[in-house]
Amino acid sequence: MPPLEPKEIKVGVLGATGTVGQRFILLLSQHPYFVIHGLGASQRSAGKRYSQAVTWKQTSPIPGIVREMVVTECKPEFFKDCAVVFSGLDADVAGDIEAEFRSAELIVFSNAKNYRRDPLVPLIVPLINASHFAMVPHQRALHSPPLKKGFILTNANCSTTGVVVPLAALEKAFGPLESCMITTMQAISGAGYPGIPSLDILDNVVPYISGEEEKIEWETLKILGGIAEDDNGQKAFDMHSRHPLRISASCNRVPVIEGHTECVSVRFARRPPPSPQQVREALAAYTSDAYALGCPSAPRHTIFVHEESDRPQPRLDRDYQMGAGVSIGRVRQCRVLDIKFVVLANNVAIGAATSSILNAELAVLKGYIPSVSAE
Amino acid sequence: MPPLEPKEIKVGVLGATGTVGQRFILLLSQHPYFVIHGLGASQRSAGKRYSQAVTWKQTSPIPGIVREMVVTECKPEFFKDCAVVFSGLDADVAGDIEAEFRSAELIVFSNAKNYRRDPLVPLIVPLINASHFAMVPHQRALHSPPLKKGFILTNANCSTTGVVVPLAALEKAFGPLESCMITTMQAISGAGYPGIPSLDILDNVVPYISGEEEKIEWETLKILGGIAEDDNGQKAFDMHSRHPLRISASCNRVPVIEGHTECVSVRFARRPPPSPQQVREALAAYTSDAYALGCPSAPRHTIFVHEESDRPQPRLDRDYQMGAGVSIGRVRQCRVLDIKFVVLANNVAIGAATSSILNAELAVLKGYIPSVSAE
Amino acid sequence: MPPLEPKEIKVGVLGATGTVGQRFILLLSQHPYFVIHGLGASQRSAGKRYSQAVTWKQTSPIPGIVREMVVTECKPEFFKDCAVVFSGLDADVAGDIEAEFRSAELIVFSNAKNYRRDPLVPLIVPLINASHFAMVPHQRALHSPPLKKGFILTNANCSTTGVVVPLAALEKAFGPLESCMITTMQAISGAGYPGIPSLDILDNVVPYISGEEEKIEWETLKILGGIAEDDNGQKAFDMHSRHPLRISASCNRVPVIEGHTECVSVRFARRPPPSPQQVREALAAYTSDAYALGCPSAPRHTIFVHEESDRPQPRLDRDYQMGAGVSIGRVRQCRVLDIKFVVLANNVAIGAATSSILNAELAVLKGYIPSVSAE
Amino acid sequence: MPPLEPKEIKVGVLGATGTVGQRFILLLSQHPYFVIHGLGASQRSAGKRYSQAVTWKQTSPIPGIVREMVVTECKPEFFKDCAVVFSGLDADVAGDIEAEFRSAELIVFSNAKNYRRDPLVPLIVPLINASHFAMVPHQRALHSPPLKKGFILTNANCSTTGVVVPLAALEKAFGPLESCMITTMQAISGAGYPGIPSLDILDNVVPYISGEEEKIEWETLKILGGIAEDDNGQKAFDMHSRHPLRISASCNRVPVIEGHTECVSVRFARRPPPSPQQVREALAAYTSDAYALGCPSAPRHTIFVHEESDRPQPRLDRDYQMGAGVSIGRVRQCRVLDIKFVVLANNVAIGAATSSILNAELAVLKGYIPSVSAE
Repeated sequence: MPPLEPKEIKVGVLGATGTVGQRFILLLSQHPYFVIHGLGASQRSAGKRYSQAVTWKQTSPIPGIVREMVVTECKPEFFKDCAVVFSGLDADVAGDIEAEFRSAELIVFSNAKNYRRDPLVPLIVPLINASHFAMVPHQRALHSPPLKKGFILTNANCSTTGVVVPLAALEKAFGPLESCMITTMQAISGAGYPGIPSLDILDNVVPYISGEEEKIEWETLKILGGIAEDDNGQKAFDMHSRHPLRISASCNRVPVIEGHTECVSVRFARRPPPSPQQVREALAAYTSDAYALGCPSAPRHTIFVHEESDRPQPRLDRDYQMGAGVSIGRVRQCRVLDIKFVVLANNVAIGAATSSILNAELAVLKGYIPSVSAE
Repeated sequence: MPPLEPKEIKVGVLGATGTVGQRFILLLSQHPYFVIHGLGASQRSAGKRYSQAVTWKQTSPIPGIVREMVVTECKPEFFKDCAVVFSGLDADVAGDIEAEFRSAELIVFSNAKNYRRDPLVPLIVPLINASHFAMVPHQRALHSPPLKKGFILTNANCSTTGVVVPLAALEKAFGPLESCMITTMQAISGAGYPGIPSLDILDNVVPYISGEEEKIEWETLKILGGIAEDDNGQKAFDMHSRHPLRISASCNRVPVIEGHTECVSVRFARRPPPSPQQVREALAAYTSDAYALGCPSAPRHTIFVHEESDRPQPRLDRDYQMGAGVSIGRVRQCRVLDIKFVVLANNVAIGAATSSILNAELAVLKGYIPSVSAE
Repeated sequence: MPPLEPKEIKVGVLGATGTVGQRFILLLSQHPYFVIHGLGASQRSAGKRYSQAVTWKQTSPIPGIVREMVVTECKPEFFKDCAVVFSGLDADVAGDIEAEFRSAELIVFSNAKNYRRDPLVPLIVPLINASHFAMVPHQRALHSPPLKKGFILTNANCSTTGVVVPLAALEKAFGPLESCMITTMQAISGAGYPGIPSLDILDNVVPYISGEEEKIEWETLKILGGIAEDDNGQKAFDMHSRHPLRISASCNRVPVIEGHTECVSVRFARRPPPSPQQVREALAAYTSDAYALGCPSAPRHTIFVHEESDRPQPRLDRDYQMGAGVSIGRVRQCRVLDIKFVVLANNVAIGAATSSILNAELAVLKGYIPSVSAE
Repeated sequence: MPPLEPKEIKVGVLGATGTVGQRFILLLSQHPYFVIHGLGASQRSAGKRYSQAVTWKQTSPIPGIVREMVVTECKPEFFKDCAVVFSGLDADVAGDIEAEFRSAELIVFSNAKNYRRDPLVPLIVPLINASHFAMVPHQRALHSPPLKKGFILTNANCSTTGVVVPLAALEKAFGPLESCMITTMQAISGAGYPGIPSLDILDNVVPYISGEEEKIEWETLKILGGIAEDDNGQKAFDMHSRHPLRISASCNRVPVIEGHTECVSVRFARRPPPSPQQVREALAAYTSDAYALGCPSAPRHTIFVHEESDRPQPRLDRDYQMGAGVSIGRVRQCRVLDIKFVVLANNVAIGAATSSILNAELAVLKGYIPSVSAE
């Protein structure tokens, strides 16, 4: 049974005219309780109506609620009525702006990479490590000056999100992993707009995405790891260090519009490893805290396991459950490691805006948004 | 200095109207000494002029030499003047027809999969294991009745060819490999015509190609292995058994017209393994017997090693050296195995027709075509 | 206010495993009163559960209501409880089967081309010429033996549908057209599955679609024309003959998955012709009988007129109003004829299954389905 | 018989690092007598070796002759040894730079649009209107101060070039045209690099290209028209004014890499108009001055007329004759105008760099390059 929901929570969107911002707006315009109250963008857009400021690139029209809303600059004073702000800002400006919002006691759910490696900022894939919210009080306390309400919380890179979901499910069922090989085939929408020139990707594969392999290899450890506490009560992300996990990623761009496909192979610490059938069952059975707690945007099936030999495919499977879950297929033995399979995750839904919104829903349900009583 | 070349060798093409057959014709029409003398196809095409029988799908026009040539059925009597036949037949008919041609003392260079696993038939990637020609006398001798001239020789599957070239170069430089992970992104032309329906591949990835992973995993062992001899002088392919090599392949179809891209990671038996720079140098330095012996279709650079971070790419690199070599890039360390890199091979050139023709050139130069004196 | 709706009308789908059949099933599974009761397919599929018989190619899963339903052959005896059957049959079998169903007093809404040129069968684009239902009593009466209930009604070819909607709106507002030039850029889904081989269309345009230009040039005249009555009370489609209309179509296939784009230029009989602005207003103001009568699948905006200079685009606009309307943009003067514009219509929605279902809704509302009282 | 050729003519390339510049370099590196002697680019590239300055996007490697050549700024002093400069400059800088080069007595063959509408600058499609060279002495004389050698000569927009070739051939054979409707499906390479974002064109058509329709409608009149002389001996382009020709163009971008496809319909002044077969014959028989005079880059077949019903297609036909000719197919009657057909022209070959080079070859052969004696 879902919990009592809050009536209405005012939210802002930073980077509202960009690709991720547009997705935030589409999703929030249909949200049961988040209501868009502010739109932040660059100085160039500030003062314009949203429909004039944006180059809208979505397949459904601009939602009525924002069409005539006036865009402001990304300054906290314009968002003080918002309980939450979602940031779809580019990395080159996200660092300063998000910090400024936090200092102003605003709560920031960010899709940018800037704070993902911050030792006090949780990097949460909402289907996996909601437990990392535990770092929030610590982040507030160590801020100078200490904060009562503000914090920054990030979600993961889109290609990381796809792969950590099954990895977490496997560790939960079968204990720690020892190594993991990942080869991605990533959609062009992961690069934003204008992003990839068509001359680079039509009838082509680009076997390189700047910084992407490092993100997967690093973020996965933070997400799958726990929070350790030292003798002084200082908390720190342990980076999966109790069971070292070696991850090797190879990232490719392919001419697909939406949906990252990833070929994954894993080796378990335990011998003998689980069988493909045991893996299939464990993946299908995995349920997320987000769904258990009643987040309205959480997918019923965290992981959908395909039986057909040729699935998942991005074009056919990316919109299942509105892109909020992860699809897996071809679970089979690997002759080098133990088990291999194919993962599909919608890079603009669970891989970006949907994750931020789910994190905000978790924050509401877990009581991390002080001004809101969830009932 | 190239060796003396034969003046003219008459050749036939079986499956002449199909995708691979069309490539054979394009390449042979410009060959320095092979001259097309016979075209075999199905009963439906027999008796028609080639230009009427074929649905020509190449980007250059039908060569003048075959335009008005009359197509015959694939029966040895129509090809008795041919020193060599190239087979681009589909697997469902290649088995019987190729055997019949061999029995009739014809020499068959086949692109079909039927005899690749035959213990007496060499599976030769001409840039790599020309030494396997040594099985030919054995194949002739064990035929019933024994043959004087006829034999069947196959080239590898298109995705196997791409990956075995660097693997052979690495084993030559650094000793045996222990394991190898391969993830392919294969072009649609690999599936022939009509092949993949456009609805299946536009804006999509299909993470499955029937039988392909098994082919890579098996063929690679035969090609990289040697020929063993038992106490009775019986020869057999050793399947790399002296140094067991574990290979795991994951095959994907992507919306690319030509050129298979493969992400490869390897572990060497020797510790410590070579550095990325040593690997780059060894790959670039590798030269093929085919080039050393003077095969006219052999690429000058067996392996071209790219320094740019985002190469090779199929659209940009598939036509380099007329698609006869292999391109490699992104040689770097792997956190799970030792070294990883990206391979690009043109699936319709070195991955198909070009390999068959190179094998025939090798046969000429090595004296396996009795009726031809190479001078 | 919408009229009272019927509670539930049982319907069948012929050609249920094909591309159009799958669309019928998707749409009908969410329909307010049509309920799928029978699934017809070829002998090969008969007897199987739908989920086993079909190669499902839609982006949402097989609806639960048909998943376990047993497929039958396309024979009337299996559909006698159905008030309506929708036919997505291929043209090579549709002729006989649809006639057999009609003879058995079943009502057939067909997407096939077989009866479109039949002088007694209405060819109805539901947003345009619902008045052609008037031919139904005539069709029944002239059948041998005369029918009480059964009839066949077809919708138009997908590319015709896109263009007749604005043409009808223009004729309604400004009187008869004199000539019309149409150049189409059609999606691959218009060719069914497997349809166009990917090797034919990736990085390509095919400037020819067999029979398509003739369909547009002929069907448009039937749809835009009226029904004439001779001295004996015999009714006949007048093919727009009172104001001869010359139509010239050029049809192209482009690498787009869904949504036909058409560049249209028209010349009006009236001089001076309307201005672009008058045309824009007339198009936007046009409302369909289907919407006015309350068809639940009718789009609110029959024609959506874009103001942006670069719209409509298939990828962005094909799903607007669930693909049930038509999008138009770039209305401007033509230096050769009078006015030119761009039309986008979703070929699998309004261009196929949606039109058939709208026609059936019209039949319900107009009382052409005797067993149903629309209350 | 070809004329005696000059031994070697030094040429420069302006905008050498851009898309068109790269094509100039590829073509010139294999030219029988033009030899690249200077490379001009922006200040950012000046001083670097070409291989470091360029982001090379061609499918064959950087030619050896330019790899280590040092790039300069686009100033005449760096090109004074060049008999000719080819300009692939962007329109925002081409105007000033090209004028400066002309003032310095350099001869500029420009692919930019800036001077196409200049009343003294010939706009020459080399397969068509070589006669417009007659304006060159006039351009020199009216320059202030008058020039002895320098002039600017432009080629047409890529989509114009495709269509004027058959139009000129038809006018030559059958007299003046009265009207012409053109709908283009243009390749992404026509927009340069980075050009069209992949998110805008994958699985899509964009029915608008800024300024393109106006270019086709205007340039065609200048090219097809003659040169008139007034009573004072003043020469002017007559813009086809003796036989007014109405042209209406609709331009679309499609996901094709190279090769513009255009659907064209024409009405002749003469009644009755020629038959489709007469048109086919006239098109196939047309020969260009460029070929007749012996330009080495001129295609043997100015127009190749396809008989197959589904040709020309960009992927299959764009490289025929190295893209230097024009392909036409589907010549048939039009129900609105007289005759319709499909044109394919390679936008980066005959539509851009090849045309400029052909124009320079014409200049050599016609004696417009004073410093060169063609022998």
